[in-house]
Amino acid sequence: MKLWLATIIVTTTLTLGQQVQGSELKMDNDLAYNLVESLTVEVGPRLAGSEADARAVAWAEQKFKQLGYDKVWSEPFTMQYWERGNASLRVEAPFNQALVLTALGGSVGTPFDGITSQVAMFDNLQQLQQADPVDVKDKIVFINQTLHKDIRGSFYSQVVGARAQGAVEAAKLGAKAIIIRSVGTSNNRFAHTGIMRYADDVARIPAAAISVPDAIQLSKMLAIHPETRLSLHMKNNLPGEVTSHNVIAEITGSKRPDEIVLIGAHIDSWDEGTGALDDGAGVGLVMATAALLKQQKPERTIRVVLFGNEEGGLIGARAYAARHAAELQNHVFASESDFGAGRIWRFDTGFGEQALAFAADIQQDLKHLGIAAGTNTASGGPDVSVLKALGVPVASLQQDGTDYFDFHHTPNDTLDKIDPAALQQNLQAWMLMTGKIANSSVDLRK
Amino acid sequence: MKLWLATIIVTTTLTLGQQVQGSELKMDNDLAYNLVESLTVEVGPRLAGSEADARAVAWAEQKFKQLGYDKVWSEPFTMQYWERGNASLRVEAPFNQALVLTALGGSVGTPFDGITSQVAMFDNLQQLQQADPVDVKDKIVFINQTLHKDIRGSFYSQVVGARAQGAVEAAKLGAKAIIIRSVGTSNNRFAHTGIMRYADDVARIPAAAISVPDAIQLSKMLAIHPETRLSLHMKNNLPGEVTSHNVIAEITGSKRPDEIVLIGAHIDSWDEGTGALDDGAGVGLVMATAALLKQQKPERTIRVVLFGNEEGGLIGARAYAARHAAELQNHVFASESDFGAGRIWRFDTGFGEQALAFAADIQQDLKHLGIAAGTNTASGGPDVSVLKALGVPVASLQQDGTDYFDFHHTPNDTLDKIDPAALQQNLQAWMLMTGKIANSSVDLRK
Repeated sequence: MKLWLATIIVTTTLTLGQQVQGSELKMDNDLAYNLVESLTVEVGPRLAGSEADARAVAWAEQKFKQLGYDKVWSEPFTMQYWERGNASLRVEAPFNQALVLTALGGSVGTPFDGITSQVAMFDNLQQLQQADPVDVKDKIVFINQTLHKDIRGSFYSQVVGARAQGAVEAAKLGAKAIIIRSVGTSNNRFAHTGIMRYADDVARIPAAAISVPDAIQLSKMLAIHPETRLSLHMKNNLPGEVTSHNVIAEITGSKRPDEIVLIGAHIDSWDEGTGALDDGAGVGLVMATAALLKQQKPERTIRVVLFGNEEGGLIGARAYAARHAAELQNHVFASESDFGAGRIWRFDTGFGEQALAFAADIQQDLKHLGIAAGTNTASGGPDVSVLKALGVPVASLQQDGTDYFDFHHTPNDTLDKIDPAALQQNLQAWMLMTGKIANSSVDLRK
Repeated sequence: MKLWLATIIVTTTLTLGQQVQGSELKMDNDLAYNLVESLTVEVGPRLAGSEADARAVAWAEQKFKQLGYDKVWSEPFTMQYWERGNASLRVEAPFNQALVLTALGGSVGTPFDGITSQVAMFDNLQQLQQADPVDVKDKIVFINQTLHKDIRGSFYSQVVGARAQGAVEAAKLGAKAIIIRSVGTSNNRFAHTGIMRYADDVARIPAAAISVPDAIQLSKMLAIHPETRLSLHMKNNLPGEVTSHNVIAEITGSKRPDEIVLIGAHIDSWDEGTGALDDGAGVGLVMATAALLKQQKPERTIRVVLFGNEEGGLIGARAYAARHAAELQNHVFASESDFGAGRIWRFDTGFGEQALAFAADIQQDLKHLGIAAGTNTASGGPDVSVLKALGVPVASLQQDGTDYFDFHHTPNDTLDKIDPAALQQNLQAWMLMTGKIANSSVDLRK
């Protein structure tokens, strides 16, 4: 491993001349960490479409230039803006107390006087869908489903439906509002936000999440006193269409510049944490990867794309795909880092059969970092999955996500949750994979 | 241990006839847990002097009666009320973002337009005290001291001075406000509240705490950009004098009813968590202890005191000591549970020399629960220390407080943080110690 490190990692500690906002960038093993530190400290939370999002875009452009990228530009797209306002949830007598809640992204607010009602509790979305409208009408629906941990975060997709579709299903049955148990794995008293959806032909009701301890608390209250009433007040702003940006930078290929190896992450974050794990770590990793590979003069072009508004539903990724539709045939590869900052434990691909020997070759190199061979069913990452659907070959360096949903989408997603050593292992893997593909002429397409 | 359990713990699962607010009380090993569950769920946060505090008092009186106590009463005392209002702290350009903060108990608010100023950062209170006023005047003082963990929580007293006295010291040097790094051991993004003090002849400036990740964040900003400005807005209410109560209940002694064995905890809690560890666990423990000992017909009277307004500075304890001054000579012993819900690991006493053999005898019995012999310098607990100072013999069943300051005085102090098995071990120790002392005629006084 030491030998490998010496050959792959650029250890020169070249300090870039210009000091921007006081933070220094050294071209060494710490580069990814230093970038996520700079982003989270100097920009902080960066909700898509906000003033902070614009500062994040400016930050990224400036850092790309400092890092010696050959081309740096941004591409605008329009999006519906949503902004969190004050929110409170109180239990009425006899158990008068406040519960910790957060609005789900995209939710409407309540009327000024709030919504006060009894609660209809369900174990999961499916149980709500099968409910008798009589039991739901005019109530506040409460979905109390637990998210369990695993390395792949594979239970998330089973539980997150309540967040995304719960408001529509509850409104169909006449509910006044919906609250869900946070889609998170920690018992810290933080509520977990995330995007939710409405349907055109169904009433738009307010949707929020309560923390895991509060969900336990509320279920205990309902067991003692099923008539418990809640009072929900929530003010959110939905001012309409705004412009955000994807930020793009390239290291031009030395031999086949038209062939694009895309590595990405997303620049936006939710507004309550500083977006260190989601997705500052990914931003730092992909920005550092191509910057450090530059001195190896990669044969193909490495394009780093920092997608905008991933959290709102892959809005930047769809804009990128639309704008670059004619060029997608030149995208020989794409991959995204967007699952926190845990160590990479598996290498998955989405390659054609003819490229699987090459995939095995990459994995042999990754093996030294403790990375196992995976499947050929990789998504490539949330934003990159949009490109995969359009025929671009992808791979996923799978991160250990055991603790990811302890922090994800909460105020607790902050820099101190990143283990610098794990981030270095990520960087080594990203450089190895990206460098190998950028110097190859293997056709990865299915 | 099994044998011991069988002899000491009342295992009859007698369900009390009347069901109050739906929760059942069984006279078994789970009684302490069931009481803290009932208190935290059905009453929740109970800031001294608030409406919830009054509900907690009513809850305690009702539970004592249900549990078969021979006498139950409350004793009023007056106190200065303080109530938290909205608070926000924002970093101004170029690093615009919100930091997580909470007002310290007793703090005044800011002017309506807030306080916006540069920051004067110090490592600890001593460094602030030695500062040149020129470096502090018109600034927001920031004390950035880390609290380290240990089983005794012994670093707390070294760090908490910044919280208690920081506002006075900062104001003496002309500061406009003070913020401190939370006096807590977790890197969860919760700020840690607690009481602070003003001095009569020093300007009253607003005082608040920021979470540990925010303290790290702010110190990083100041390292990059020392001129960073903060904007603090805080509204607290100090409406004046109100009445709160100590709640008292007794199991009358079968042979020497005039001799009082006092076991205590505090009924009030801070307002942001549900006060499960501080001090719901203690409340559950002492209420359960005497209730379960009743069938053993203890020779001395066991008096359970749930002190009011401990958090505001032992206000209920002082009122108790004043009201019972003439009777204190009959207080043959006092002890309090107020350090969370961790396992008891050591038995400390504050006895006269003639009683140390008896102390050793108690410890021999406690040994089966993994409890070691301690010192003869016990405080007895925060409220009970007031009685100790007046000559009442005390003991402390020392709890493992390694994780206590992860949760203490934050929104994260909730029921799920209590390990029921550890609470059972506490209950066994409390029953053993209290039973032994209530059946003894040894004079414990110094």
